[in-house]
Amino acid sequence: MHIRVVNPNTTRAMTDTIEQCARAVAGPDTLLDAVTSEMGPASIESHYDEALSVPGLLAAIRRGEADGVDGYVLACFGDPGLDAARELAGGPVIGIAEAAMHTAAHVGRGFSVVTTLARTVGRAADLAERYGMRRFCRGIHACEIPVLALDTDPDARKIVIEACREAVEADGSDVIVLGCAGMADLCAQVRAEVGVPVVDGVAAATLTVQSLLTLGLRKSGRGEFAAPPPKPYTGALRSFGA
Amino acid sequence: MHIRVVNPNTTRAMTDTIEQCARAVAGPDTLLDAVTSEMGPASIESHYDEALSVPGLLAAIRRGEADGVDGYVLACFGDPGLDAARELAGGPVIGIAEAAMHTAAHVGRGFSVVTTLARTVGRAADLAERYGMRRFCRGIHACEIPVLALDTDPDARKIVIEACREAVEADGSDVIVLGCAGMADLCAQVRAEVGVPVVDGVAAATLTVQSLLTLGLRKSGRGEFAAPPPKPYTGALRSFGA
Amino acid sequence: MHIRVVNPNTTRAMTDTIEQCARAVAGPDTLLDAVTSEMGPASIESHYDEALSVPGLLAAIRRGEADGVDGYVLACFGDPGLDAARELAGGPVIGIAEAAMHTAAHVGRGFSVVTTLARTVGRAADLAERYGMRRFCRGIHACEIPVLALDTDPDARKIVIEACREAVEADGSDVIVLGCAGMADLCAQVRAEVGVPVVDGVAAATLTVQSLLTLGLRKSGRGEFAAPPPKPYTGALRSFGA
Amino acid sequence: MHIRVVNPNTTRAMTDTIEQCARAVAGPDTLLDAVTSEMGPASIESHYDEALSVPGLLAAIRRGEADGVDGYVLACFGDPGLDAARELAGGPVIGIAEAAMHTAAHVGRGFSVVTTLARTVGRAADLAERYGMRRFCRGIHACEIPVLALDTDPDARKIVIEACREAVEADGSDVIVLGCAGMADLCAQVRAEVGVPVVDGVAAATLTVQSLLTLGLRKSGRGEFAAPPPKPYTGALRSFGA
Amino acid sequence: MHIRVVNPNTTRAMTDTIEQCARAVAGPDTLLDAVTSEMGPASIESHYDEALSVPGLLAAIRRGEADGVDGYVLACFGDPGLDAARELAGGPVIGIAEAAMHTAAHVGRGFSVVTTLARTVGRAADLAERYGMRRFCRGIHACEIPVLALDTDPDARKIVIEACREAVEADGSDVIVLGCAGMADLCAQVRAEVGVPVVDGVAAATLTVQSLLTLGLRKSGRGEFAAPPPKPYTGALRSFGA
Amino acid sequence: MHIRVVNPNTTRAMTDTIEQCARAVAGPDTLLDAVTSEMGPASIESHYDEALSVPGLLAAIRRGEADGVDGYVLACFGDPGLDAARELAGGPVIGIAEAAMHTAAHVGRGFSVVTTLARTVGRAADLAERYGMRRFCRGIHACEIPVLALDTDPDARKIVIEACREAVEADGSDVIVLGCAGMADLCAQVRAEVGVPVVDGVAAATLTVQSLLTLGLRKSGRGEFAAPPPKPYTGALRSFGA
Repeated sequence: MHIRVVNPNTTRAMTDTIEQCARAVAGPDTLLDAVTSEMGPASIESHYDEALSVPGLLAAIRRGEADGVDGYVLACFGDPGLDAARELAGGPVIGIAEAAMHTAAHVGRGFSVVTTLARTVGRAADLAERYGMRRFCRGIHACEIPVLALDTDPDARKIVIEACREAVEADGSDVIVLGCAGMADLCAQVRAEVGVPVVDGVAAATLTVQSLLTLGLRKSGRGEFAAPPPKPYTGALRSFGA
Repeated sequence: MHIRVVNPNTTRAMTDTIEQCARAVAGPDTLLDAVTSEMGPASIESHYDEALSVPGLLAAIRRGEADGVDGYVLACFGDPGLDAARELAGGPVIGIAEAAMHTAAHVGRGFSVVTTLARTVGRAADLAERYGMRRFCRGIHACEIPVLALDTDPDARKIVIEACREAVEADGSDVIVLGCAGMADLCAQVRAEVGVPVVDGVAAATLTVQSLLTLGLRKSGRGEFAAPPPKPYTGALRSFGA
Repeated sequence: MHIRVVNPNTTRAMTDTIEQCARAVAGPDTLLDAVTSEMGPASIESHYDEALSVPGLLAAIRRGEADGVDGYVLACFGDPGLDAARELAGGPVIGIAEAAMHTAAHVGRGFSVVTTLARTVGRAADLAERYGMRRFCRGIHACEIPVLALDTDPDARKIVIEACREAVEADGSDVIVLGCAGMADLCAQVRAEVGVPVVDGVAAATLTVQSLLTLGLRKSGRGEFAAPPPKPYTGALRSFGA
Repeated sequence: MHIRVVNPNTTRAMTDTIEQCARAVAGPDTLLDAVTSEMGPASIESHYDEALSVPGLLAAIRRGEADGVDGYVLACFGDPGLDAARELAGGPVIGIAEAAMHTAAHVGRGFSVVTTLARTVGRAADLAERYGMRRFCRGIHACEIPVLALDTDPDARKIVIEACREAVEADGSDVIVLGCAGMADLCAQVRAEVGVPVVDGVAAATLTVQSLLTLGLRKSGRGEFAAPPPKPYTGALRSFGA
Repeated sequence: MHIRVVNPNTTRAMTDTIEQCARAVAGPDTLLDAVTSEMGPASIESHYDEALSVPGLLAAIRRGEADGVDGYVLACFGDPGLDAARELAGGPVIGIAEAAMHTAAHVGRGFSVVTTLARTVGRAADLAERYGMRRFCRGIHACEIPVLALDTDPDARKIVIEACREAVEADGSDVIVLGCAGMADLCAQVRAEVGVPVVDGVAAATLTVQSLLTLGLRKSGRGEFAAPPPKPYTGALRSFGA
Repeated sequence: MHIRVVNPNTTRAMTDTIEQCARAVAGPDTLLDAVTSEMGPASIESHYDEALSVPGLLAAIRRGEADGVDGYVLACFGDPGLDAARELAGGPVIGIAEAAMHTAAHVGRGFSVVTTLARTVGRAADLAERYGMRRFCRGIHACEIPVLALDTDPDARKIVIEACREAVEADGSDVIVLGCAGMADLCAQVRAEVGVPVVDGVAAATLTVQSLLTLGLRKSGRGEFAAPPPKPYTGALRSFGA
C-alpha cells in the first residue's frame, strides 16, 4: 500500500516536517513518501497562492499515478485542487482540512480551528461548509504567524498554544483543529497544555487514506470525478493537455 | 490496542458476521473482539427497539472499561445510545452509521443509503443531519427485508443488490452506504455488481476507531461528554446507578 | 379525556410539582394524572441518565395504554424516548421541550432557554434543531444548579431569575423558556421579575396534548410511528418483548 | 376569555363556516366570535389580494382591542399581516398556517399541504420556512379550485380528497394540512377517507390562542412586537394614523 | 427606458433625496422619475407602517403601468409589498434592500447593515434570508435615529458613521449596507470615513432595474407572479378591485 | 470606464462570441474589450480544466491591472479562480455564474440552469450554494453537448432549447439560466421559444460590473480580498511570484 503526501508549496523543509508526522502514524505495511511541488508559491497564504499551487499539485498526482501510488494526502489546510486531483487519481485523495474536520467531529461536540493568517479564515469556513462540518466548527481563529515563520519564529509555539487555549474558552469547544500543515508537529504539545483532543490534519489524512485503501475504496469514477476528458492545452501549461 | 465491537441486539449469529467483517480490516497490532448485548431486542427495527437496546449497550461499555478496552464500535446503523456511550467510555466510540457516512463522503459526490425496513428511514435521515452529512446523502431506500431475514431469506442478497442499483440511478449518487450491520458481508458483492464504491459501516467504524487510537485521540472530556454525574438508580436498572 | 403526565425520573416529589403545574392549566373536562417512572435515574442530567430513563418511561406508556389514557406529556426537558413513546401510544405524546419551544415561537421573535447544568446545553440545542426551532432559539444558558437542588437550594430561585434576566439581554430575545420540568413552578415569578413572557414546558405540553385531543388528532400510524413489530426481548428487559 | 376570529376577506359566508369550525373546538369558558373584514378582496388568491387584505384585518384588530378581545385567530392560510397584527394587539395573534403547521409537526414525521391555486404554493413555502417547519413540510399541492368555489363547486370535496390522497403517496407524508380557511369543514371527511391525521388551521389556531391565554402568555412587548410608534397617516388610510 | 422610483411613505422631502441619488447613477438614456405614495404613513418604522404602506405603493405601480413605466424601484429598506408589486407590474420591480444586499455580496466577503430603529432589525434579517443573503449578512445594527430625523437631527450623520465603524469591527465585515432609503445621501461620506465599500440601496436598485431592462428581462409571468385574478374589492379599498 | 471580459479558455472563437454578447449590453461610455487566456485548456469541462485555467486567468488580470482596467468579467460558468482574481484586482471581478444567478433571482421565483456536460452539474450546485442562490435554484440540467460543439454541432441549438423547455416543466421554475459562456448567443431564441425570462451570464456580468463601477464600488480591500502577500514562486509559474 503506497501513500504519497503531496506538499503543494515548494518549501522542502516543510515537506520534511509533514513527512515525519505522516510516517509516525502510518501502518507497518504502508509505503509512505512525501513530495514537494515543483512549481508555485513557497507558502500558501492567499486565494492567489492557493490557486497557483494547483498545477504543481496536479503534476505531482500525475507522477504519482505513473509511479503506482495508491492514495494521496494533500498537505495544505486549504485543500487546494481537491476536486481536480480526485478526477486525476484512481485511488483516494484526501485533504488535510477535510480529514482533520471529520476526525474532530468523531471525538467531541464542537471544534475550534486555529490557523495562521486572518485572511485564510474565510477559506477554512468555506471548507467546513463544503464538508458538512459547519455544525461542528464553532470558530476559526488566526494567530497571525505566517506559515514559514511557524518554524523560525521562536515565539511561534507559545503564540499558537495561547491561541488554542483562548479559542476553546471563547467558542465553548472541546476539540482543537490545527489549521496548517506546518503546525503538525505542535500537536502533542498543544494537547498537553490545553487539555483537549488536538487534531493535526496531516496525520489524520494519512490514516484516512490508509483506511480507505484497507476498505478497498477508491474514488468513485461514476459521474463528477471520472477522469477528465483529454484536450489540447496551450502555453506554459501545455504539458497538462492531451 | 484493544477495540471492542458491540452488537446492541441480542442475536449472537449477527455478532459473528459483524466480528468477521471487523477483523478483516483491523491492523495486525489491533486486538479486536465483539460482544453481544445481554438484554434487549433480538433485532432493532423501530425507535422502540433502538431505545431498549441502549441499556444492554451501556452495560457492555461498562464491562469494556473494566476490561481496559481502548475504543468501541457501535454496530447498529441507528447508532443507538451513542452520546451516552461516549460519556461512559474514556476512549473513542463510533457508530457504524456515523463511520459509514463520513467514509462515503471521502470518495464521492453523494451517496445513497440502502436499508432494511421503510420505518427506519427517518432515523437514518436524522443521523445524516446530525453528522453534517445531509449534503452528501442523496436518498435513503428500504428494501423491506427484516434485519434477521438478511441471513435466512434466500432472496435477500438479490433484493439488496437490486435496491442498490436502483438507488444509484434514482439519486444520481456515486457511492452506496449499506444501512444495516447485518449487510456487512454483502459489501464486495454489491460493489462488483453495481460498480460504485460500497461502504459497510462495521468495517469503516473499526478503522475509524483504530485511526483515532493511533492518533492518540480519546473522546473529549471537556463539557458534554464528561463522565456522567453518579446518582441513585431504581428498579430493574438499579445496577446502572452509583 | 384522560391525559397522563409521565415524569421519567424516579423522584416522586418532582412528580408532585409537575402534576400541580399541569393541573393548573388543564380544562374542566380533562382527567389529568401524573406518574413517576419505576426504574432508572433519580434525575436526568446526562445523556446516560436520559437513555436509561427511557425503559421506565416506555413501561409507563404501556401501562397508560392499558389504562385507556388518551394522551401523554413527557415531563423532562430532554424529551427522552419521544419517538419510541410515539410508536407505543395510540394518542399524542408531547415532550415538554417540544411544547415549550413551539409555544415560545408563537409569542415572540426569539427565545432564550435557561436550563440546569451546562452539560445539557447540547441536548437542548439538538432538540431545537429537531423541532425546527433553531431560528427562534437565540441562546441556551445553564445556571449550574443540579435538577434536584432546584427545590432544596435556598438560592435556586434567585439564581434562575438572574440567569433569565441576563439571557434576555445577552441574546436580544423576547421570551424565556424554562429548560427543566423542575422549574415549572418558577414561571410566574420569572415573568414578573424579567418582564417577558415565560414558558414552562409542563403547562405548555399539557395544553398541547389537550388541544390535539380536542382536534381529534392522534399520532399518525402511517409509517415511522406505527406500532413497533413485536419480537423476543432478553434479560432484564425481557418484559418489553412479545 | 374572549377570542376573535378575523376573516381577512370580505365574504361573510366564509366567515360563517370558519366560525362554526372554531366554535366546535373552543372550551366552555371561551367567548368566541368571528368578524369579516370591512374592506379589501372577496377572497385571497394572490400576493396582491393578501397585501390588500391587511388594512381591513388591522382595522378589525383595532376594534378588537377596543372591545377587550384577549386573543385573535387570523383566518387565511397566507397569514397576512401577522407581524403587524402582533404589534397592534396586546394578546396573542395566531395565523392558521402557523397553527396548522405547528400542530401537524406534533403528530407525524412530515406533512403535506393541500391548497387551492398553484400560485399560492410559494407563499405557503415561505411560511413553512418562517415558522421553522420546512423540515416537516414534505410538499405543497394545489387542487386548482378557487377559494370561493370550495363552497359552490359540487366536485370540490371530491377533488380536495383526491389531492390529499395523492399528496400523501407522492410525499411519503403521514399528516395532511388543509391549506385554506375555506376547507375547514372538510377536515373530518378527508381524515376518514385518506386515513391519516388531517389538520385544519382554523380549529388548530383557535386552540393555540386559547392555550396561550390559559398559560397567561401575551405577545412579547419587548422589541420588535412593541406597539408601533404613532405618526400621521395620509389619504384613504388616514384613520390608521395617530 | 422609463424607470420610476416609488417612495412608499408619504414624505415628499424624502422622495426628493431619493430621486437625486437615483438620478446620479442612471444612464443617459434612462428616463427616471420618483413618486411619493398618496396614502399611508409618513415614515415606515414598524410592521404596521410597512403593511399600511402597501396600498399606496400598489396604487403607484398601477399608475405606473398606465404611464408606460418599464421598471420600478421600491424605495424603502423593508421592501414592502414586493411580491404584490411584481404581480401587478409587467417589468422588473426591485426593492432597495434586495438590490443593496445582492450588490454588497459582489464586492466583499460579508456585509454589515446599519439601520434606523432596533425594532426593524428583524425585518432586515427576514429579507436577508429571503434573498439568500444570510451567508453574507454578518450583522444588522440600529443607530436608533427615527427615519425622518435622519434629515433633521444635526448629529444624525455622525451617529450613523460611528455605527458603521463599530459594525465593521464587531462583525469582521468588509462592506457596509445602509439600511434606510433616507441614508442614501450619506453613502460617499461613510465610505470616506470607514474605508470600506458602502452600498446605498436606492442607487443599487436603480442600476439593477436599468440592467434588467437592458437585458430585456421582465418579471416572469409564469406562475406565482402572473397578474392577480381580478375580483370585487370592498370598502375603502374598493378601487383596487375589478 | 474600462471593462475587460476574460475568457479563461484558450479558444479565440469563443472569446469573439462572448465579446459580442457583452458589447451588446454595455453602455455608451463603457470601453469594453475581451481577451483569451494564453495558457491552459481549450475548453473547461472538468475540475481539472477549471483549476488549470486559473493561471492564465490570473495572468490576464495582472495584465489588466497594468492596462488600467476598471473591472472584469470572468467568462466561464464555473467562475474559476474568482477569489484569487479578486485579490489581484483593484476593481470588481464578477463571474458569469454569479451574475446570472443573482440576476435570475430578481425576476422570478426559481430558476433552472441548463448546462453542457453532466459532470459539471456539481460545480454549478456548489456555486449556487456559495452565492446564497440555492433557494432560487430549482434544478441543474445537462444537455451533454461539449462546450466547443455548441458552435459546431448543427443540432446544438435545438437540443439546448428542448432541455430548457423540459427543465421549466420538471422544476416548476419560471426563469432559465444558461450555464455556459458559449450559450450566450442563444439567449433571445430560448426566451422566444420557451416563454420565460432567460439569463445569459456574460451579458448579466457585464452589466453587474458596469453598475458596480457606476456606484463607485471596488472590491473590498479589508481582510480576505486584500492584495496577496508577495513571495517567491518556483518553476513554470515563477513569473507569478514577487
